[in-house]
Amino acid sequence: MAANAVSQIPVTRFTYGESETLNDAVAIEEPLEIRLEYGPVADRKVQNISVTMRTPGNDAELAKGFLFTEGIIKNASDIKKVPHCFIACAENRENVIQVSLAENIVPHLQNTERNFYTTSSCGVCGKGSINAIRTVSSYNNDITDANAIDATLLTMLPNTLREHQKVFADTGGLHASALFSTAGELLIVREDVGRHNALDKLIGAALDQNTLPLNNSVLLLSGRASFELVQKAAMAGINIIAAVGAPSSLAVHLAQEFNITLAGFLRGERFNIYTAPQRILKPTYEDTYKK
Amino acid sequence: MAANAVSQIPVTRFTYGESETLNDAVAIEEPLEIRLEYGPVADRKVQNISVTMRTPGNDAELAKGFLFTEGIIKNASDIKKVPHCFIACAENRENVIQVSLAENIVPHLQNTERNFYTTSSCGVCGKGSINAIRTVSSYNNDITDANAIDATLLTMLPNTLREHQKVFADTGGLHASALFSTAGELLIVREDVGRHNALDKLIGAALDQNTLPLNNSVLLLSGRASFELVQKAAMAGINIIAAVGAPSSLAVHLAQEFNITLAGFLRGERFNIYTAPQRILKPTYEDTYKK
Repeated sequence: MAANAVSQIPVTRFTYGESETLNDAVAIEEPLEIRLEYGPVADRKVQNISVTMRTPGNDAELAKGFLFTEGIIKNASDIKKVPHCFIACAENRENVIQVSLAENIVPHLQNTERNFYTTSSCGVCGKGSINAIRTVSSYNNDITDANAIDATLLTMLPNTLREHQKVFADTGGLHASALFSTAGELLIVREDVGRHNALDKLIGAALDQNTLPLNNSVLLLSGRASFELVQKAAMAGINIIAAVGAPSSLAVHLAQEFNITLAGFLRGERFNIYTAPQRILKPTYEDTYKK
Repeated sequence: MAANAVSQIPVTRFTYGESETLNDAVAIEEPLEIRLEYGPVADRKVQNISVTMRTPGNDAELAKGFLFTEGIIKNASDIKKVPHCFIACAENRENVIQVSLAENIVPHLQNTERNFYTTSSCGVCGKGSINAIRTVSSYNNDITDANAIDATLLTMLPNTLREHQKVFADTGGLHASALFSTAGELLIVREDVGRHNALDKLIGAALDQNTLPLNNSVLLLSGRASFELVQKAAMAGINIIAAVGAPSSLAVHLAQEFNITLAGFLRGERFNIYTAPQRILKPTYEDTYKK
């Protein structure tokens, strides 16, 4: 985690009616404007795509992951460079990032968030949203049952994450997304004030590592599992999601439609499985007995 | 809370390696498309404003609160009606809502989220965002120091909220925003899978009750305090915000700029004050002694 993820500020702490002044850490939240530069050399265009409130750090991963999970780009190789600073930007360059696509790449700008949720006929509905995602996901057909994790191993992942999630321990203000191997090895962890940003950063990192689709690993979410998070995971081909918090109804529906294993309330030795339980392996009798 | 806020679904629950199948409650998440109808009778326009993933219930409040906290409308009386269902909508009418403005009202459509965060000169920065909000807030000048709450009373608000937050107890999946009097009386509570929606619903309810600016009360947030939540509170003239979770850096900066009291980590008998501590009154010696 970058050093600029946390700020020390003075606070007044009340404890049983007594107050003291001390310094405390807060998670930094700043806007990031994501711009897209694309088109042939003779006719380059620059378009504002999104402004997200994020914790600074891993901004290029965030921008790449966002463009990928929104279906606007399909491959890491679509991107030529991702500079923070550019000529038109005199100040606050750290809060503006411009993703420059290769000249031959046409971005799928119709795949913006609104279009995900809006059907052409009439407004929005969960079913329409799910169908829209199906059409833009590259890895829909890569979600197989081959991947699996032991139930006992799954319950140990939050501890591993907590050991690595130092900023959260300091501030209590950051969400984390973590990618594990099915052997329980922590592969990537990213933190952010926005849970969707933490996951976009993680998927952006995987794009950089050229490890997509992520259909041989487990995604751990430090909080709740919303529709948006499952959607982003589906776009990256993730087929096991475990959340420390609760899932929403539409998160469960989307996981079901995509045959993604969704576990929630992962706390201590307990958790719930909402969909596709075949990828969570019961411990053997001996494993259980050892407890 | 509406009956359609929660859904019962089958889950597989693992406990120490043993699994059982049971029904469990999940919070419902569905998209809501907010449309705005405005203009003179001879030339009515309909425009899609936003799609938000929300928990069904209090949708009209959500739409009104959203339009108000985004600065698109200025008064409850700008709105003529807020129907869910309209002629062009054959299905999913519960997920589309159309706010119809009075004929003489011109919506401030330049005050959209993106413009909040984007300065004309160069991208985005915290300072630019804060200045943008200052220009569109109706109640900026109504934030005075007159309002105050006893520290001891403040620590009791989360318990009062929990008693009323039944759906959260069931699902663990909902955020709440609650408005209290400075005497600790619960005035309005709204829940949603999205914390910004819970607050928009609350402010929409206050618009309906014609009680804005809310500069004589206390806003309690069940989770973290982000920039967006403080921004919405500022738009409604709220001057005391207490969060059960952590604030972000930009939430603290915004509260400071607007002279809003921001408390966080409200847990048991402890909490932190980040800004404007003059509105939190120390208990008298007798109050403290009684403990």
